[in-house]
Amino acid sequence: MDTRTPRPSPFLPAAEAFRDGRDTPRQFLERCLEQYEGWESDVRAFVHVDLARARLASDASSQRWKSGRPLSRIDGMPIGVKDILETAHLPTEQGSSLFVGWQSVRDAATVSAVREAGAVVVGKTVTTEFAATEPGPTRNPWDTRRTPGGSSSGSAAAVALGIVTAALGTQVIGSIIRPASYCGCFGYKPSLGALNRGGSFDYLSQSCAGVLAATLEEAWVVAREISSRVGGDPGFPGLSGCIDAPSAKKPATVALLQTDGYASLSSEAKQLYQSITAMMKSRGVDVLTRANSADVDVAEQALRKAGSLSRAINAWESRWPLNTYAADMDAKGLSQAMRNRLEEAKSMTLEDYQTLLKERLEVRSVYAKLATHVDACLTMSAPGVAPLGLASTGDPAFAVPASLLGVPAVSLPLFYSEGLPLGLQLLGFQNKDEEAFGYAAYLAGR
Amino acid sequence: MDTRTPRPSPFLPAAEAFRDGRDTPRQFLERCLEQYEGWESDVRAFVHVDLARARLASDASSQRWKSGRPLSRIDGMPIGVKDILETAHLPTEQGSSLFVGWQSVRDAATVSAVREAGAVVVGKTVTTEFAATEPGPTRNPWDTRRTPGGSSSGSAAAVALGIVTAALGTQVIGSIIRPASYCGCFGYKPSLGALNRGGSFDYLSQSCAGVLAATLEEAWVVAREISSRVGGDPGFPGLSGCIDAPSAKKPATVALLQTDGYASLSSEAKQLYQSITAMMKSRGVDVLTRANSADVDVAEQALRKAGSLSRAINAWESRWPLNTYAADMDAKGLSQAMRNRLEEAKSMTLEDYQTLLKERLEVRSVYAKLATHVDACLTMSAPGVAPLGLASTGDPAFAVPASLLGVPAVSLPLFYSEGLPLGLQLLGFQNKDEEAFGYAAYLAGR
Repeated sequence: MDTRTPRPSPFLPAAEAFRDGRDTPRQFLERCLEQYEGWESDVRAFVHVDLARARLASDASSQRWKSGRPLSRIDGMPIGVKDILETAHLPTEQGSSLFVGWQSVRDAATVSAVREAGAVVVGKTVTTEFAATEPGPTRNPWDTRRTPGGSSSGSAAAVALGIVTAALGTQVIGSIIRPASYCGCFGYKPSLGALNRGGSFDYLSQSCAGVLAATLEEAWVVAREISSRVGGDPGFPGLSGCIDAPSAKKPATVALLQTDGYASLSSEAKQLYQSITAMMKSRGVDVLTRANSADVDVAEQALRKAGSLSRAINAWESRWPLNTYAADMDAKGLSQAMRNRLEEAKSMTLEDYQTLLKERLEVRSVYAKLATHVDACLTMSAPGVAPLGLASTGDPAFAVPASLLGVPAVSLPLFYSEGLPLGLQLLGFQNKDEEAFGYAAYLAGR
Repeated sequence: MDTRTPRPSPFLPAAEAFRDGRDTPRQFLERCLEQYEGWESDVRAFVHVDLARARLASDASSQRWKSGRPLSRIDGMPIGVKDILETAHLPTEQGSSLFVGWQSVRDAATVSAVREAGAVVVGKTVTTEFAATEPGPTRNPWDTRRTPGGSSSGSAAAVALGIVTAALGTQVIGSIIRPASYCGCFGYKPSLGALNRGGSFDYLSQSCAGVLAATLEEAWVVAREISSRVGGDPGFPGLSGCIDAPSAKKPATVALLQTDGYASLSSEAKQLYQSITAMMKSRGVDVLTRANSADVDVAEQALRKAGSLSRAINAWESRWPLNTYAADMDAKGLSQAMRNRLEEAKSMTLEDYQTLLKERLEVRSVYAKLATHVDACLTMSAPGVAPLGLASTGDPAFAVPASLLGVPAVSLPLFYSEGLPLGLQLLGFQNKDEEAFGYAAYLAGR
């Protein structure tokens, strides 16, 4: 177990010093790269880096700050890019042996947006195979015997270690919230469609682009700089709201959900979970649970399906491209898990899928009713700290509901257990991301 | 002007002969390739072909028919693939000099589906640049001085000439309906999201994958073989309904729409247009127009925005990937039209776009009300026959409403004017594609 403590690298607080020349984005980058040099061989957060290009971009940013004309608040911010997002200057390998060395000619929408805003792309971060279950080489920065979580494994580890201030991730099951919890950084999975997925190799109807970041503010600001430039998925309104991070707002009522992960909570995590109620009440916030609210009970019942529904929907939606990978590339390059998913898809019919969509819509509609009298829902981000071993990326049970629902979710690194980080998750309501961030800021104690 | 007459190659009627050995898919393909040899140098429908691979696939299909085990009704059908759809075995160039020789490692969802169904991909058909306005080299098979229409230019020409029975196309403005009308084949733009666009380089919220075909039946059957294998866009129900083409069904009431193209109808086209009313009435079908129906009048008023709304929505949604093409590829490789579109996008805000989406939703809702007492809407497919000249792909005015609305549209090659084909367009209602085909079959006189 590594005795050094991971420490993120907040960028926004450094900006004042960029303006008056006490610090520069290039110097900031160099401090981040010291972290890279110190940790990367143990943690393996990156698939590819281009440090020379990052330094050049950082120098250009330093000039802009010096002349008082930064392109945005994130001009010069070191950023990692999950390796299922296309990049013009680095390969995109998707954690798959089939795509080793595969090179796009362009940037994904989110990548192009952060570069337009002046951010500095340090490299591509490790993802599980096709952002699904087969782990990559990344290890947990708090204990390298443990998983960093997945699928945004490298993004979470790199942010937790301060190699980058923020990293782009994606989530369809638990791929942002879980690794953020395990690695101890902030994780933000936006409302469905809120950030443009163009040029991302994730095609599933629950997939979202999102952000892992050193601070809650930076998770918001990076996301908002993206949406103001490339919007959300085509046809979706895209992430709206203030450009600066929303101010803390005290919720009147929260619902503490006992969704599927609850049964497998570690005993220490269960105590932390239960402490939330006391903490909220002491601050004068009403807490609804299944015990005192029929609506919460009904929503939890509906969410029992979240895991099985999500997986079945993902299977059908993965029929393509897995069918062409199996037929037109080397099928042996697919993991057994992916081959199983393709077989499952082939056993399904379009009508099966249509039934699943209807069921998902029903669950969404049940949950949406909570919005009339609940400001936000709370759960843990994971059933416990990062488990030992690297063969699995851990249990996503607590993260699945927000994925199925298409609602915003934020993981706040507020808890520690066994000396390891564990996140508190806040779930909001569809396209109410700004409100969710206000409540999250309150919980984070700003 | 070419004196030969283009003639499509229906495949389904030949299938009986495949079963008893009087004919084979390979022989069918060879007859198609005779058309290719005879016409391609004049018409230039294809960017790339792989005739050796097509012949091999056709031989395999011949074996399956001979042994009584075809993979589907389209097993062996020669098919063209619009060159914005990825193909594992041929380049995908998108009509752009930036993508000359660009090669994917996989098939687009629609391509993988028709190949799984046994269809024979003959080659990639010419598209305008990025399926937008800049014409490719294809000429109209009826008169090579005229445009074939766009953006599915090569798909329409190849089907009209019987080089392939059907071709995959896409439409966001008028890219299936217009070339089908100009070239004299059947064109089918499905309901929004009805066919999976995975692996297609068209990301716009109105974009649809669709089919151009020798017969109405084949347009349906190809689409349905696709949806049963890879569904629709993720999260959409996908094209449903009978596997064989819907039987002809007499509509009780049709609405004859005078949408934006009406003002620019050629005089002969206007006479044909007006003849529709008489034809319908003689068959006992009620005909609503703005003159006798307030609902039709209101819908037409709402649809006045279709062109400007669609173009503004497309502009914002094109910010990516045009921004990365301009930044990371050779910006001079973009046409002036594309550079203008990028500039327009950069002058827009996310909030502008959100307003446009709301306006589109309103138009859709006004149109949807017609469904309570109208079975289908009719218009011409284009304001006239294919115009002379190759610098423009013609006026898409009549095709835009169905694109904006996300409703199914079928172009039926029922009219001729000046010795050239002109389509009648039938518009249905969202996800009621099967019903639309029933009415289309009635109009087509089956």
